[in-house]
Amino acid sequence: MRLRNNPNAESIMEAHAHIAILEPSLYKGRFKELFVNSNPIHVEVGMGKGNFLIGMAKKYPDINFIGIEKESSVLVAALAKVDIEEAIPNLKVMCVNAINLLDIFEEKEIDCLYLNFSDPWPKTRHYKRRLTYKDFLMIYQTILKEDGAIELKTDNRIFFESSILSMNDYRMYLSDLSLDLHNSEYQEENVMTEYEKKFSPHGPIYRVVGKFIKGE
Amino acid sequence: MRLRNNPNAESIMEAHAHIAILEPSLYKGRFKELFVNSNPIHVEVGMGKGNFLIGMAKKYPDINFIGIEKESSVLVAALAKVDIEEAIPNLKVMCVNAINLLDIFEEKEIDCLYLNFSDPWPKTRHYKRRLTYKDFLMIYQTILKEDGAIELKTDNRIFFESSILSMNDYRMYLSDLSLDLHNSEYQEENVMTEYEKKFSPHGPIYRVVGKFIKGE
Repeated sequence: MRLRNNPNAESIMEAHAHIAILEPSLYKGRFKELFVNSNPIHVEVGMGKGNFLIGMAKKYPDINFIGIEKESSVLVAALAKVDIEEAIPNLKVMCVNAINLLDIFEEKEIDCLYLNFSDPWPKTRHYKRRLTYKDFLMIYQTILKEDGAIELKTDNRIFFESSILSMNDYRMYLSDLSLDLHNSEYQEENVMTEYEKKFSPHGPIYRVVGKFIKGE
Repeated sequence: MRLRNNPNAESIMEAHAHIAILEPSLYKGRFKELFVNSNPIHVEVGMGKGNFLIGMAKKYPDINFIGIEKESSVLVAALAKVDIEEAIPNLKVMCVNAINLLDIFEEKEIDCLYLNFSDPWPKTRHYKRRLTYKDFLMIYQTILKEDGAIELKTDNRIFFESSILSMNDYRMYLSDLSLDLHNSEYQEENVMTEYEKKFSPHGPIYRVVGKFIKGE
């Protein structure tokens, strides 16, 4: 873990040690111990400023939520936000790049993974950087339980098209597809991200859920 | 074949015997003989008034196009349109309901199948009527060659969402996905239907290509 973006980030994280995990790899395979329960673990990859994760953690107290964010400066902004909120025992955050998820989680350790408004990398030559490129799907498949799901939402058409094709090509089972989430049956349950609140008036929000098919 | 919708339809079709096939089942497994060549055969299910099919037949003279339409009154309108055009030797039409495709085509007889702006049957209770419901996919799989494709476009969000999920669930391989065809890289090659010309200014046109994976 490196906190290059913000020289004060490490000390700010230390000051929030009840929620920020400074050495996440220490908990590999033992996150249930960290939460002191055996509830399901849901991970948001790229938690941004944390609106979604905080909203979900409050809405579903019987699920443990872990937010990962590669940019320490962004993570610190999320921590500032949690500071003014009441204690949220089922929420932890850590500064991790998605490419390193296998260093952090044991095989089949998590139950659900959220990709919310991930960097779309819209240029074709950057498609391998998209968080739904097959190399990432392979990582998610390893750390997710067998019936575990990836829940994805985005407002970026190119990223969404590419994600659907990548997940289909990986032989994942798709469900809960919406090409206009805010005008769909799923809207009622939807917890919005900061980005989503800001950009949804300008175009549709896309959503899909993907599961890895057993035995493949 | 029944031409109940238009009492004059049969006589109009007879008058266009060079293009309208009155007894399509007679050609089952022998459509290449009808076209007097062994070019690939592409079928549009629900050809409507025929704009797409006529445009494609002119654009690709080395492909044989067959349009099927269950409503004889609609088919007759398409025939009237062809009448005023120059002869199109690679184009045939017939009054057939998609549910009867297996009576018309031999296994693996066709190379490509188009579903353009099919009736969306948007109510959940009617989902089995949608032309991408699994019972229809099974029919298409039978009559398509192993590397044959289904090319689908629609402006109906619910139909498109349901089609993607149905094709994914059927273990089809998806490609060429566009959630805004008229603003995508595929636009240049696109031949528009009548409906598409009329409705595309009011919202996005969705498109996908699906193939049945060999051995499944």
